[in-house]
Amino acid sequence: MSHALETFPNPRPERDYQIEIRAPEFTSVCPMTGLPDFGEILIRYVPDATCVELKSLKYYLGAYRNRGIFYEAATNQILDDLVAALRPRRMTVTGAFSARGGITTTVIAEYMAPTLPS
Amino acid sequence: MSHALETFPNPRPERDYQIEIRAPEFTSVCPMTGLPDFGEILIRYVPDATCVELKSLKYYLGAYRNRGIFYEAATNQILDDLVAALRPRRMTVTGAFSARGGITTTVIAEYMAPTLPS
Amino acid sequence: MSHALETFPNPRPERDYQIEIRAPEFTSVCPMTGLPDFGEILIRYVPDATCVELKSLKYYLGAYRNRGIFYEAATNQILDDLVAALRPRRMTVTGAFSARGGITTTVIAEYMAPTLPS
Amino acid sequence: MSHALETFPNPRPERDYQIEIRAPEFTSVCPMTGLPDFGEILIRYVPDATCVELKSLKYYLGAYRNRGIFYEAATNQILDDLVAALRPRRMTVTGAFSARGGITTTVIAEYMAPTLPS
Amino acid sequence: MSHALETFPNPRPERDYQIEIRAPEFTSVCPMTGLPDFGEILIRYVPDATCVELKSLKYYLGAYRNRGIFYEAATNQILDDLVAALRPRRMTVTGAFSARGGITTTVIAEYMAPTLPS
Amino acid sequence: MSHALETFPNPRPERDYQIEIRAPEFTSVCPMTGLPDFGEILIRYVPDATCVELKSLKYYLGAYRNRGIFYEAATNQILDDLVAALRPRRMTVTGAFSARGGITTTVIAEYMAPTLPS
Amino acid sequence: MSHALETFPNPRPERDYQIEIRAPEFTSVCPMTGLPDFGEILIRYVPDATCVELKSLKYYLGAYRNRGIFYEAATNQILDDLVAALRPRRMTVTGAFSARGGITTTVIAEYMAPTLPS
Amino acid sequence: MSHALETFPNPRPERDYQIEIRAPEFTSVCPMTGLPDFGEILIRYVPDATCVELKSLKYYLGAYRNRGIFYEAATNQILDDLVAALRPRRMTVTGAFSARGGITTTVIAEYMAPTLPS
Amino acid sequence: MSHALETFPNPRPERDYQIEIRAPEFTSVCPMTGLPDFGEILIRYVPDATCVELKSLKYYLGAYRNRGIFYEAATNQILDDLVAALRPRRMTVTGAFSARGGITTTVIAEYMAPTLPS
Amino acid sequence: MSHALETFPNPRPERDYQIEIRAPEFTSVCPMTGLPDFGEILIRYVPDATCVELKSLKYYLGAYRNRGIFYEAATNQILDDLVAALRPRRMTVTGAFSARGGITTTVIAEYMAPTLPS
Repeated sequence: MSHALETFPNPRPERDYQIEIRAPEFTSVCPMTGLPDFGEILIRYVPDATCVELKSLKYYLGAYRNRGIFYEAATNQILDDLVAALRPRRMTVTGAFSARGGITTTVIAEYMAPTLPS
Repeated sequence: MSHALETFPNPRPERDYQIEIRAPEFTSVCPMTGLPDFGEILIRYVPDATCVELKSLKYYLGAYRNRGIFYEAATNQILDDLVAALRPRRMTVTGAFSARGGITTTVIAEYMAPTLPS
Repeated sequence: MSHALETFPNPRPERDYQIEIRAPEFTSVCPMTGLPDFGEILIRYVPDATCVELKSLKYYLGAYRNRGIFYEAATNQILDDLVAALRPRRMTVTGAFSARGGITTTVIAEYMAPTLPS
Repeated sequence: MSHALETFPNPRPERDYQIEIRAPEFTSVCPMTGLPDFGEILIRYVPDATCVELKSLKYYLGAYRNRGIFYEAATNQILDDLVAALRPRRMTVTGAFSARGGITTTVIAEYMAPTLPS
Repeated sequence: MSHALETFPNPRPERDYQIEIRAPEFTSVCPMTGLPDFGEILIRYVPDATCVELKSLKYYLGAYRNRGIFYEAATNQILDDLVAALRPRRMTVTGAFSARGGITTTVIAEYMAPTLPS
Repeated sequence: MSHALETFPNPRPERDYQIEIRAPEFTSVCPMTGLPDFGEILIRYVPDATCVELKSLKYYLGAYRNRGIFYEAATNQILDDLVAALRPRRMTVTGAFSARGGITTTVIAEYMAPTLPS
Repeated sequence: MSHALETFPNPRPERDYQIEIRAPEFTSVCPMTGLPDFGEILIRYVPDATCVELKSLKYYLGAYRNRGIFYEAATNQILDDLVAALRPRRMTVTGAFSARGGITTTVIAEYMAPTLPS
Repeated sequence: MSHALETFPNPRPERDYQIEIRAPEFTSVCPMTGLPDFGEILIRYVPDATCVELKSLKYYLGAYRNRGIFYEAATNQILDDLVAALRPRRMTVTGAFSARGGITTTVIAEYMAPTLPS
Repeated sequence: MSHALETFPNPRPERDYQIEIRAPEFTSVCPMTGLPDFGEILIRYVPDATCVELKSLKYYLGAYRNRGIFYEAATNQILDDLVAALRPRRMTVTGAFSARGGITTTVIAEYMAPTLPS
Repeated sequence: MSHALETFPNPRPERDYQIEIRAPEFTSVCPMTGLPDFGEILIRYVPDATCVELKSLKYYLGAYRNRGIFYEAATNQILDDLVAALRPRRMTVTGAFSARGGITTTVIAEYMAPTLPS
């Protein structure tokens, strides 16, 4: 699904700096019950050569709307797709999902480029 | 009591990532007075081979409803049962209990797998 | 169930004044699923000859812990029992229940003594 | 669409009391752009002979998920369907929708039974 | 106990205006258990010829520190003593007490001068 | 300036209902100092035959960006232009402006259609 | 002291609308102890022919900085001076003062033009 | 004064875990002015062989009610008494006292067992 | 654009201390859509020989009002211009921008003087 | 100006513990415009032989009321005067000043005793 993510050149590749993107209107479908899940996706990354274009990110996240996927898999998949598209120096994706049965779940997955010097 | 906890395979076992589960509707019974206690259980863990299935966790926590147990023992017992069922890489259980006699108590217990490399 | 509610004489029966009691640790059982419900009961009343004794109220509310009852019925039942025990000049009972299936419900029932002049 | 709304008998039809239902996970689709809209539906009503069954309400609201409809029309439609199914003594539906283009919109529609005495 | 309350002349007796005094550090003793109670006293009044002097009010409220008295009686007593000392045009005293046994109580008592024209 | 405001037909003209629009990103220029002012515009109205189209509203409000105008005049002008474009049954415009010199100002202007029956 | 308050013509004298001004950085001196008092002055008014110019208001309020005056007198004095300068249709001045001896005081004074028709 | 503190055996002495106790209803007397002080005592500790029994802690803290003591001395004294009674692995006591003369004070004292290996 | 930034001598150059400046009224223009962007700029720095003069900073930030620039470029540009003008020992600039399309972006860029000893 | 700061002997000099003092009612005068500045001073220190007496601190801070001084200089001056009077083991002074021109400034200065072993 990563083909939908577009990028633009990082305006300051010579500097390590952080971009945080908060998308509070994430929704997918529970693969067991078929009921909708709601949550917020938080992306934090240090760009390398490219940054993610926000409109394409919005469409990318919107494509989960009618897709059956567990919290743990969705959060890791978003991280994998963003890493594949951006090749960032490091990135964290946090999925904070609404309460189900009185229980709230948050999943936090992190990537660090293997060759990052410091 | 850990027999009630069900698991499913971790979808990304090759990555260390964190799952946080907040269960604000925990209740048990004070073993001295027989009166109900109320609190919130917060579970944070890094899964290894398995993740906890939420519906079974909800029933597991619900089984404390009419059981007489102290705060300190309940928090540690939940940690022990989850560690036995999941064998996580690391896990913290926090029990934040409502005020009694104007005094609020929070208990925080932590487990770290002995063989965790880094 | 109203036999459990004890009262004490109103210290200022010649004055209309209001008493508010907030009990945020209410729990009962859903009669359809058998799962626990959680909520907060808020009682506002103008006492006539008697006030409700708080310890007995606590035990009265605690008796719903393992009883199967719908939100609408529980809130109206608490109002009926308190009215029967206290004969207040007026009373409101509000039951604010935790989210189930992403939906939160509040029930508000009110009683006014038929002979209250103004 | 009102066929999906199920009801159960009001347990205290002899008393005017209020039920508030908050559904913060509402989503529909903008009929002009095809993009998802997010919001919260708040329902307040005084039941007459019947109350709305919450699980059927959840499915009823979930049916807007992939439907193209404006804020003003959705809020009024939900009110019309609930009034048709419940025949309440009075009812208010509030749709509070998330910001679009930096602008947030809330729509509040009210119904009062024509024969309600006071 | 009203002898301890001192007053000073109202600087604008020709105008109806309101004074609100919030004293969040009120403490007394439960007459049944001998345990301390804590709460906040809120006083709202329209002065007539005199205003209450704040230092004397502080000492007046401090005199409840080791006195055994119920919530309902304390709130009404403070209103009675202030009315006797100030003869205000109208006054409300609210006592908001800390949770005991998971239950919070607020008592609201009001006075209105019998001859107040409008 | 009201030519820029576009409308669409009210989907329920037979019902009095309220629409609230919050635009927190309003900015104009102080006519005395030439410095930018920032604030939030809140519009509440009961539509008659037409509703305001949100994108045109956004552009209408954006046109104040480089215009010199006082708080009081801007709030009243927005009300006048919206009333001219929509002919609502009633409307309130509130302009809440950020602190200048440690002082914050809010202006609230209201319109009611002269022939509104009740 | 009202000579310091400057005004400008009301841009919409034909309409009753409200202006709220919040000045959270008010300070004066206690006439008994010589210690500084701190508080917030909130002014709400319906202008008639003139509005208060904010810079002159700031200087007017700043002139209380080293002046010994009680809360009740200061709030009423500010109302009197503003009424004298602006001749508003109606005005409320609220002085909310910081805690002294654990006790917080708020004074609310109101003016209504004698000839205000409705 | 430590004789009043009772203990019970730590249910998991083989694990380092943390207990936090918040007592927001602490009051003592200023030794200079004789006026009451109010504050919150926060205790965080890692138990060794014993935990503090909450009812005895409540009585222990209540004994400061009419005792003249400075903030710095009270906070350190509570730490010393708890360390003497519990011999914890480590402990922090924080006393957060209400504003006096517009100034708020917090005192934080910490103990660490001399032989704690890691 | 850094010519507009004025400085004054650091009053304590012999000490490393931190200055934080929060400018919540930042606005620029999206270079793709021409629509306004809104956000807050937070600057944290340790001054060396000079500090930034606040009025010049306000005018400097105001110059972005009608300039087309991306979030990432604006945040880095502000850091570069401030570093060029002040030569601080270290500095962080955070740009927190309002939601667009339901997505909020924050950019954090940091500078550290190459010769900073510790 | 440090002559005004009085001290009393530290009741536990053998223990490193922290005292935090929050003074939210600080005001001084801008040396350029002559206008008042408002802010909060936060002092955190580890006492050595002496603690600062709070009443003298209040008078010390009050002496800035009519003194012209920049934020950066005031914060550092307060730190220098307190260090000279108390000789603490370590101390931080934070000055958080109210918005001017829409911009808020916080200054944080720190002192550490040169001979502090650990």
